[in-house]
Amino acid sequence: MTRLPIAALAISLGDPAGIGPEVVAKCWDNRARFDLLPFVAIGDPRSVAAVWDGPIAIIDDPREADSAFDVGLPLIQIAAAEESLPGQPSVAGAHCSLDTLEIAVGLARSSSASAVVTGPVSKEQLYSIGFAHPGQTEFVAERCGVAPSNVAMMLAGPTLRTVPVTTHLPFADVAANLSASLIEARGRTTLRGLQRNFGIAEPRLAVAGLNPHAGEGGMLGREEIELIEPAIEALRQEGWRVSGPHPADTMFHSTARARYDAALCMYHDQALIPLKAIHFEDGVNVTLGLPIIRTSPDHGTAFNIAGQDRADPRPMAAAMRMAATCAANRALAE
Amino acid sequence: MTRLPIAALAISLGDPAGIGPEVVAKCWDNRARFDLLPFVAIGDPRSVAAVWDGPIAIIDDPREADSAFDVGLPLIQIAAAEESLPGQPSVAGAHCSLDTLEIAVGLARSSSASAVVTGPVSKEQLYSIGFAHPGQTEFVAERCGVAPSNVAMMLAGPTLRTVPVTTHLPFADVAANLSASLIEARGRTTLRGLQRNFGIAEPRLAVAGLNPHAGEGGMLGREEIELIEPAIEALRQEGWRVSGPHPADTMFHSTARARYDAALCMYHDQALIPLKAIHFEDGVNVTLGLPIIRTSPDHGTAFNIAGQDRADPRPMAAAMRMAATCAANRALAE
Repeated sequence: MTRLPIAALAISLGDPAGIGPEVVAKCWDNRARFDLLPFVAIGDPRSVAAVWDGPIAIIDDPREADSAFDVGLPLIQIAAAEESLPGQPSVAGAHCSLDTLEIAVGLARSSSASAVVTGPVSKEQLYSIGFAHPGQTEFVAERCGVAPSNVAMMLAGPTLRTVPVTTHLPFADVAANLSASLIEARGRTTLRGLQRNFGIAEPRLAVAGLNPHAGEGGMLGREEIELIEPAIEALRQEGWRVSGPHPADTMFHSTARARYDAALCMYHDQALIPLKAIHFEDGVNVTLGLPIIRTSPDHGTAFNIAGQDRADPRPMAAAMRMAATCAANRALAE
Repeated sequence: MTRLPIAALAISLGDPAGIGPEVVAKCWDNRARFDLLPFVAIGDPRSVAAVWDGPIAIIDDPREADSAFDVGLPLIQIAAAEESLPGQPSVAGAHCSLDTLEIAVGLARSSSASAVVTGPVSKEQLYSIGFAHPGQTEFVAERCGVAPSNVAMMLAGPTLRTVPVTTHLPFADVAANLSASLIEARGRTTLRGLQRNFGIAEPRLAVAGLNPHAGEGGMLGREEIELIEPAIEALRQEGWRVSGPHPADTMFHSTARARYDAALCMYHDQALIPLKAIHFEDGVNVTLGLPIIRTSPDHGTAFNIAGQDRADPRPMAAAMRMAATCAANRALAE
């Protein structure tokens, strides 16, 4: 990994009753083996102490994270109104996870942190305290002053990056929610993100078809002809390298993957099935289109295993490495 | 591979202008390396001679294939009305490919061959001569007296088998074409096929959800609750081991794959994206629900590369090995 002098990463611990505190602590334990740059956790130290015996280095300023990193897990303290117990989500825990996210994003906005890595929150808990965004991504976008339509969710692993055009929609609503302008916007966000976050000067985007065999010339559906091809053409007119629409089933074997830098997919599972089939432990969620860098591990709070020392820290470590790589790429470009 | 005394496999060469003749001949060339049991090709010997210099052993009876197999490529001759040139499909070639298929299926129906492996045909060419079935699978089903709805298309690789409930439909029509009874029928055909063709006494079927995250309890679509869960329950009532509905994106990594013998998927790409991402060269199409064994390589005629010695014989070899394994499993059970 490039070792540019970037600021520490800000890691929000997420819901204090989830596995966030445990996986972040385990990342610090394994910081050498996982090849991690200094980071600072944001959250309630009691949620870490409840699941981990290691040293916590409480700090006030993320700039102290570098020197504290060898002493203990650097942590900026956000005390919840009440202590959360592992696996037992609460209103106080939901408030804490929201404050934690707010501060982590703020540190990245002010460049005090080089990137944000967000730990898992419970949407159900957040909704119960009035959180009005579909998820953390939309919250972060708003705090950055970016419209959600200009943000894209990338899933990135070592040999594959995918971006879904539509995300959490019922399957039956996908086709009606696709438009040439949305496909074009997501494609552009993806291409710019490949340049800015991944340092790829001339990124190659492969666009998937929606229908089996990419519609077989209209025999198996017309979205390729009516929506996808016009979007591809519009991006090409801007000079981008864009191929497709490709039959989705033959896009993801290793030879095919070598031909592009990211695959633009039409719906959630089209993007996530291949990504998780190939990179289940090391796939990372990267939000593109933001002024800051934000990544997250692609798993939830897993309340059912919290506090049992069973949570796998590798996805969080992968999210931290990805954030550091993106930060280094941006620093290099500036 | 089990070396039971099974009859030779019958291999239809498919369209004489496609890559079928070339890949079958290359399989004979590499019969030891590919670990292939004796087979007999059915088709026009001129289509083989046009693309291959090896010895052809013309035979009249598939029972001669065993002894002929060391001498040359055993072939039962079906002369087309006119010779086809590689890459130049013709009406005469389409008729030949249909006769070839008919005879190969007949040999398996009469047990003169232990299984059929079908080479690639051109649907466009077949339609032009009045072929009224959507594809070879439906033709084979009719010749076997089985209703197409009781047949299932399995894609099988070394570490994953998938079966789509719906196949070649426009994406926007999938949801409306799903029903609990269809899911149940395909599930039952799959489970029986795992027993009969794969020798798995108590097969485990994992059923995918249709919507992202398998619908999140109805928040992201209700097909799981209204169609898929009732189908699963009906199969369980019959004593089958069936799990799901599972979120499709977390079903296909290696740990998850070890938990089931086949995945029942709701639509074409849900089944084919993971299969081809993981097993692009060695995925085989196996038709379940037939009295005979039928497999095919999962590629088309590839007219654009026919006659150029560029066709990869590994998918055809995988289809032959799979057919032989299924035949051995059925022989073992009898």
